[in-house]
Amino acid sequence: MTEKSFKGRVVLLTAGPTHEPIDPVRFIGNHSTGKMGYALAERFAQLGADVILVSGPTNLHTQHTGIRVKDVTTADEMYKAVLKYAETADIWVFAAAVADYRPKVVADKKIKKAGQELTIELVKNVDIAAALGKQKKEWQFSVGFALETDNESANAKEKLSKKNLDMIVLNSLKDPGAGFAHDTNKITIIEQDATHTFELKKKSEVAQDIINLILERIDG
Amino acid sequence: MTEKSFKGRVVLLTAGPTHEPIDPVRFIGNHSTGKMGYALAERFAQLGADVILVSGPTNLHTQHTGIRVKDVTTADEMYKAVLKYAETADIWVFAAAVADYRPKVVADKKIKKAGQELTIELVKNVDIAAALGKQKKEWQFSVGFALETDNESANAKEKLSKKNLDMIVLNSLKDPGAGFAHDTNKITIIEQDATHTFELKKKSEVAQDIINLILERIDG
Repeated sequence: MTEKSFKGRVVLLTAGPTHEPIDPVRFIGNHSTGKMGYALAERFAQLGADVILVSGPTNLHTQHTGIRVKDVTTADEMYKAVLKYAETADIWVFAAAVADYRPKVVADKKIKKAGQELTIELVKNVDIAAALGKQKKEWQFSVGFALETDNESANAKEKLSKKNLDMIVLNSLKDPGAGFAHDTNKITIIEQDATHTFELKKKSEVAQDIINLILERIDG
Repeated sequence: MTEKSFKGRVVLLTAGPTHEPIDPVRFIGNHSTGKMGYALAERFAQLGADVILVSGPTNLHTQHTGIRVKDVTTADEMYKAVLKYAETADIWVFAAAVADYRPKVVADKKIKKAGQELTIELVKNVDIAAALGKQKKEWQFSVGFALETDNESANAKEKLSKKNLDMIVLNSLKDPGAGFAHDTNKITIIEQDATHTFELKKKSEVAQDIINLILERIDG
């Protein structure tokens, strides 16, 4: 692999959490920091890719000139940004932790505390990777991420086919030192006919492992 | 006012948001960054106070040796930490944006997306400032914060008496450049018989305004 293996290729990458507003003050969020997605974006860019990084709210910044950051807040905004750039991208990497549900109604004023109980009704967000899977062309390569707390491998395999993904990166919350907020991660990469397990590593090294496998597949 | 006006005094201060878990991955949060609370903590410490800073999840750090930081995540954890230190503190400053409600049930595994809709039942959290108000001694001084999106002043006055506060700092979401995420803030300080309005300023300067008024009252 040369240092410019992705030269001339466009990578569309999502990263971070989404925040789904309840009212102007409150939201439903998740513990994704975006570190894994940003590490991937940096590595792709170092290898010559033209990266479009659709990022949910994080505290991360990237200076790499090969990365164009599109900031979004909600799953719906992320979906629209992804739709805008998907067609021209050679590789899609869905590393964001997108909220599955959003509040059905968003209050335009801060909800006052009144009763002892309160019920929030949620409706499903679009499954971005699955929706994109339906429009994927033969020449496009799609990578999903899954975070599972039980029955990991079976769930990941199911997602692989349902979302028309070429590869899924599985994070398990069971591994100490892996996942949210950590600078290390322990992943399993699942393909239709193969499973690759890796040791606990720095996220920059994990990014390299993922990218190496993508490169083997698209150049193979 | 001398530079060590709070020497020998203990200040208990809350800052930041709280995160109320839905499951191991998701939570209900709010847009507080903790900047206002940390600015207050720094200023109190510079003026000689022994500061106990009970902080929700933020990206802020303080190096001041006069500040002891107690990290918490949920409103319940914040309440317990506050209870632990309240009795010995001369001044209480409730600058945190505490979640009013938490999910009734916290799932121990990530909730799988299934139906088109999902309902989350919430139950009320303890109102920390109000609960502490009931045990406040004559010599203790209590400062609350309120963020309102409408009918600000009337709501703030009501909180003042209900929570047995000496002073309430009102942030309005209506002021551009004020409130969440900004480095500036525009406040109104409400006392039982007086209202003080201030211009838009840096949060460090706002902290100074608040502290000046506290000092007038406790030394007055």
